[in-house]
Amino acid sequence: MRAARLHEYTHDMANGLSIDEVDAPQVVSDSDVVVEVEGAGWCQTDNHIIEGMWTEYVDQDLPLTLGHENAGTVVETGAEVDVVSEGDQVICHPVQTCGTCRPCRQGETMYCENDAFNGLTTDGGFADQLLTSERAVVPLPDGVDPVDIAPHADAGITAYHAAKRAVDGLNPGDTAVVIGVGGLGHIGLQCLDAMCAADIVAVDLKRSARDLAEDLGAHYTIDPETEDVASEIEDITEGTGAAQVLDFVGADETTALAPDVCAAGGDHQIIGYGGHIHEPAQALVNGEFAYQGNIVGRYTELQELVALVERDAVALHTTRYDLDDVNSVAQKLEAREIDGRAVITP
Amino acid sequence: MRAARLHEYTHDMANGLSIDEVDAPQVVSDSDVVVEVEGAGWCQTDNHIIEGMWTEYVDQDLPLTLGHENAGTVVETGAEVDVVSEGDQVICHPVQTCGTCRPCRQGETMYCENDAFNGLTTDGGFADQLLTSERAVVPLPDGVDPVDIAPHADAGITAYHAAKRAVDGLNPGDTAVVIGVGGLGHIGLQCLDAMCAADIVAVDLKRSARDLAEDLGAHYTIDPETEDVASEIEDITEGTGAAQVLDFVGADETTALAPDVCAAGGDHQIIGYGGHIHEPAQALVNGEFAYQGNIVGRYTELQELVALVERDAVALHTTRYDLDDVNSVAQKLEAREIDGRAVITP
Amino acid sequence: MRAARLHEYTHDMANGLSIDEVDAPQVVSDSDVVVEVEGAGWCQTDNHIIEGMWTEYVDQDLPLTLGHENAGTVVETGAEVDVVSEGDQVICHPVQTCGTCRPCRQGETMYCENDAFNGLTTDGGFADQLLTSERAVVPLPDGVDPVDIAPHADAGITAYHAAKRAVDGLNPGDTAVVIGVGGLGHIGLQCLDAMCAADIVAVDLKRSARDLAEDLGAHYTIDPETEDVASEIEDITEGTGAAQVLDFVGADETTALAPDVCAAGGDHQIIGYGGHIHEPAQALVNGEFAYQGNIVGRYTELQELVALVERDAVALHTTRYDLDDVNSVAQKLEAREIDGRAVITP
Amino acid sequence: MRAARLHEYTHDMANGLSIDEVDAPQVVSDSDVVVEVEGAGWCQTDNHIIEGMWTEYVDQDLPLTLGHENAGTVVETGAEVDVVSEGDQVICHPVQTCGTCRPCRQGETMYCENDAFNGLTTDGGFADQLLTSERAVVPLPDGVDPVDIAPHADAGITAYHAAKRAVDGLNPGDTAVVIGVGGLGHIGLQCLDAMCAADIVAVDLKRSARDLAEDLGAHYTIDPETEDVASEIEDITEGTGAAQVLDFVGADETTALAPDVCAAGGDHQIIGYGGHIHEPAQALVNGEFAYQGNIVGRYTELQELVALVERDAVALHTTRYDLDDVNSVAQKLEAREIDGRAVITP
Repeated sequence: MRAARLHEYTHDMANGLSIDEVDAPQVVSDSDVVVEVEGAGWCQTDNHIIEGMWTEYVDQDLPLTLGHENAGTVVETGAEVDVVSEGDQVICHPVQTCGTCRPCRQGETMYCENDAFNGLTTDGGFADQLLTSERAVVPLPDGVDPVDIAPHADAGITAYHAAKRAVDGLNPGDTAVVIGVGGLGHIGLQCLDAMCAADIVAVDLKRSARDLAEDLGAHYTIDPETEDVASEIEDITEGTGAAQVLDFVGADETTALAPDVCAAGGDHQIIGYGGHIHEPAQALVNGEFAYQGNIVGRYTELQELVALVERDAVALHTTRYDLDDVNSVAQKLEAREIDGRAVITP
Repeated sequence: MRAARLHEYTHDMANGLSIDEVDAPQVVSDSDVVVEVEGAGWCQTDNHIIEGMWTEYVDQDLPLTLGHENAGTVVETGAEVDVVSEGDQVICHPVQTCGTCRPCRQGETMYCENDAFNGLTTDGGFADQLLTSERAVVPLPDGVDPVDIAPHADAGITAYHAAKRAVDGLNPGDTAVVIGVGGLGHIGLQCLDAMCAADIVAVDLKRSARDLAEDLGAHYTIDPETEDVASEIEDITEGTGAAQVLDFVGADETTALAPDVCAAGGDHQIIGYGGHIHEPAQALVNGEFAYQGNIVGRYTELQELVALVERDAVALHTTRYDLDDVNSVAQKLEAREIDGRAVITP
Repeated sequence: MRAARLHEYTHDMANGLSIDEVDAPQVVSDSDVVVEVEGAGWCQTDNHIIEGMWTEYVDQDLPLTLGHENAGTVVETGAEVDVVSEGDQVICHPVQTCGTCRPCRQGETMYCENDAFNGLTTDGGFADQLLTSERAVVPLPDGVDPVDIAPHADAGITAYHAAKRAVDGLNPGDTAVVIGVGGLGHIGLQCLDAMCAADIVAVDLKRSARDLAEDLGAHYTIDPETEDVASEIEDITEGTGAAQVLDFVGADETTALAPDVCAAGGDHQIIGYGGHIHEPAQALVNGEFAYQGNIVGRYTELQELVALVERDAVALHTTRYDLDDVNSVAQKLEAREIDGRAVITP
Repeated sequence: MRAARLHEYTHDMANGLSIDEVDAPQVVSDSDVVVEVEGAGWCQTDNHIIEGMWTEYVDQDLPLTLGHENAGTVVETGAEVDVVSEGDQVICHPVQTCGTCRPCRQGETMYCENDAFNGLTTDGGFADQLLTSERAVVPLPDGVDPVDIAPHADAGITAYHAAKRAVDGLNPGDTAVVIGVGGLGHIGLQCLDAMCAADIVAVDLKRSARDLAEDLGAHYTIDPETEDVASEIEDITEGTGAAQVLDFVGADETTALAPDVCAAGGDHQIIGYGGHIHEPAQALVNGEFAYQGNIVGRYTELQELVALVERDAVALHTTRYDLDDVNSVAQKLEAREIDGRAVITP
């Protein structure tokens, strides 16, 4: 089968991956599942992997097939697989988990002590087929197209996960701030809108992103280039501040907003990681707020997100590309020429 | 009556406060309470106030009577005060609140929009008498000496507040790390011990503090000068990390421990504020931990702490000083010559 | 001023209350607020009070002015009232609280140890004016008519309170069942719809109520006369059961649904109290569900509900009546001739 | 091997089980684990199973080997078992779960949709060996004797589970009531004492049980035969009521205590199931309390309980019997002649 593989780290996106002919995966363990990939979202993280940015955090053996946002059709299952059968359409959680470590037992599958991450630590889904496990596939409801939903496998559940956490701290009349209405942010905003009745403020440099935010349910938008974010939010909240901030950028300037923007007892949710936090401890004490890190959502959160998609609560803008186009997609993303999400259709 | 007042900011602790003769406070509002002060804890914050370190955060009118950790006997009450009567012994929450703003209505009295802070924004209790309100006094159980309990009014509830929050995230078998076993830390440690069954690791530079920690229930101690804190905790927790870290120091070096010490999903509780946080956002995302700020505890938490004191669950080491000794106490604290807590007995 | 007062308990609704001329209330305490009543919702509970059904639970001195769902305009305030001024439009929480008992301090104003309940234990708002306190009034946003919002003061916050509790246990894909789409139920259903993304199933004997439920966001409706509720919900939830049941009826037959309808770990929220619970303890153990009682919502929940009303998330059907019509309203309610909520406009 | 099996339901405990020679279990699935049983607690439920009381709730194929509280040594493991190896000592959670249904994924292993319950729906551990799975075994810490800990596999985690839930609602100064200080109750009481700082009131008819309760940390005891439970608790709590009631009896008389004993907002935890609940819905509404069912604890709660045992926080009184003695144990239990817990040692 064909697979878009990384042979060596490079900053030359035009030649990042090569389309190789490789052996199709086979079921080995009783819980294995082989999926014919129909959609595989391309993520900014894929560019980062090509550049070698993840080598200090995880072990990678090259060549490696990238792709961690996959959906498709089951073609083979191990002897003890009950959740899906051949022919079922599924979305693939990017993390394959063991199911028996304490975090897995607690439902905290993202903290699995024996995990493998598609396209990051094991072969991913920019290929005709993907080898994954029963513990990582969620059956799709009728009428949901694998190509359309694929990016939810990572972008979607990350945004959902942070939004769900924020919702716990949001009452009607409270204010949530979404910083960065891009690939993840525009999903997070829709999740907030579907799951609580707080006022939503969207902050983005781009006019088109702010317009999108309004279409998707934002009650206010702020252009940080021409407006002072902190004083705008102070006005909107009548001095109280925002109970929850969802920072999909995570740059030095956005994390620095917390002391002035967060309400007492509020949280600055860190989802994007474009930069650093530099704050005196006293600021956190005085304002009693938290910087809360957010990783990819759990397996069960992917189930919940699929339920939201089924009821049309979370729309996703996607454009389709052939597997041969992977390097061209990488380049376009680098040049910020992709609106919404690019989905490879092997 | 006599009052130890600050007339101008200074770094000369030998002459920080002067003992002035001033008018005794009078009940004005129907909810006012006048307390004859029997014990008034001296806090590091008092030194900071004398140095002017709080002028950028709060408005202060000098001269100001310092003292925010007070306990004593009620001598006069406003017409509508029901909670206490003349002759009752009370401990005084340092923050006088309005009771009608939304945070007060939610029980979040520390977020009161109309508060006054004893010894910081209004006259405090290094004086014969203190004017406070029905909303800020907690009656003492029989047998609890106001002088002994006074420091709990600030040091105590701050430590209790953080410990209570940490307890929410601690199951039997989990690990809690207490960084800094000083005035607040040794209370926080006892609160943890009384309220959960986690393993407690105490980290302190001073041998005497580590010994105290062991006496008070710590299961492990670490000397950060001779041991590597992160690898010790990795060993103790068999690689999982600490579910909760209570950082009573808040220095650059202690906040920097979080990525290596916090378990996935854990919290680094910021209580001390000796320095800064400098971390890449990616560290919080990868480890999915939070830096959680902690302010002074709520009024109802002071009630709960008094209940802990009543059952002898939280011991406090205090030394008594006359009101005339305030400047000498300030100097001793500066020179780290005070073990436990100094209590002024006006 | 005029006041509709109860002089003796009776089952003759045609002569329940008499319109008396009484002294207008005066501000006595510093926190008193006098409100000119513009809207006063008539509640089934008012009929029950007339019948004497509450005498075993509370102390009542007759004659008593009924009316606990009030909104109007402030006409006089005590010396220390800051929250509102003369001329402000407000909705009145029915419970006047002390603000200093521990439950009030915790934000649990419904557990106040020194409360007075309008129209139940103290004079209510079927009158030209109502004496209440700063602790019980919520200012109305511009554009919200006191007459329209008045019933939210009790019916609204009770439904909101239960819905908010249920929302804590509802993920996307979960199912919530609303039993009884009447005065409270139709509000609760809208609150659920605004605050979570669960599937909502409405159960009601009346066709018109089921139609209303669909208009307001219910995904499924069940007619308990012609359909088996338990098996319908088993089908809808594919065998899992409902994560949350909101029982606005509370009859023997509706509470008996819990073992068959509640998902493992779910709650059967008791709001209506038309009957009893009769269940073996083993049923609760096997299904690990709870019967959770729900009282009127807290003061801060009335603030949150007002925020929902301001954004048009919770519509209320009301019909207006003069103060002279109170007994006629009581009769119509008895005869089930009132759709939506009757509001007296003194 | 030998196995104590039930061939037909009977009320004649003297001849309930027969010691049969059967084939030893074999590993079939890759996740299977065979344990040589060293301790197997005998539970009241075993008597009930013999009597046929569970046939209406679960499917049972006779003959069936009873025994659901097992601990011992691993003798064989399936090909993909990583958690334990041959020779490891383990305690066996009584429920074997699938690991892939949504409840398992959420950590709610007791809600598993494909479970098997040792000694209830599949062969249990009153036998030389037990067939279970990797998902159901918890390795024992060094120094913990399997015979001593065996009863924690069911009695222990059920009590722990309820206590852990109660602890969420218990602040220092609050009151917890333990009704029934028997096999489960005396464990629950110790768990409360280890995990919170509430005042504990123990209620039991037997003097010896009340004495034991005091030894284990109860602050008050009540004899329901000579004292009025409700008024005693009203006195102890100064009128507030108990924030949490743990009802290990679940009889009509004990569930009937809730309206008078539970504090507003409190819970009456149902663990024992000796009878029924009969209450007007209005009682739950007025007092805003809940009847909360409690099933056996989750797998991860067994891990937590083992951690408590390791630190000597939960002592268990056991007496050892041979496998041949099973019917004699059943008879003694029926005659209430067993103090603490009988453990069969095959």
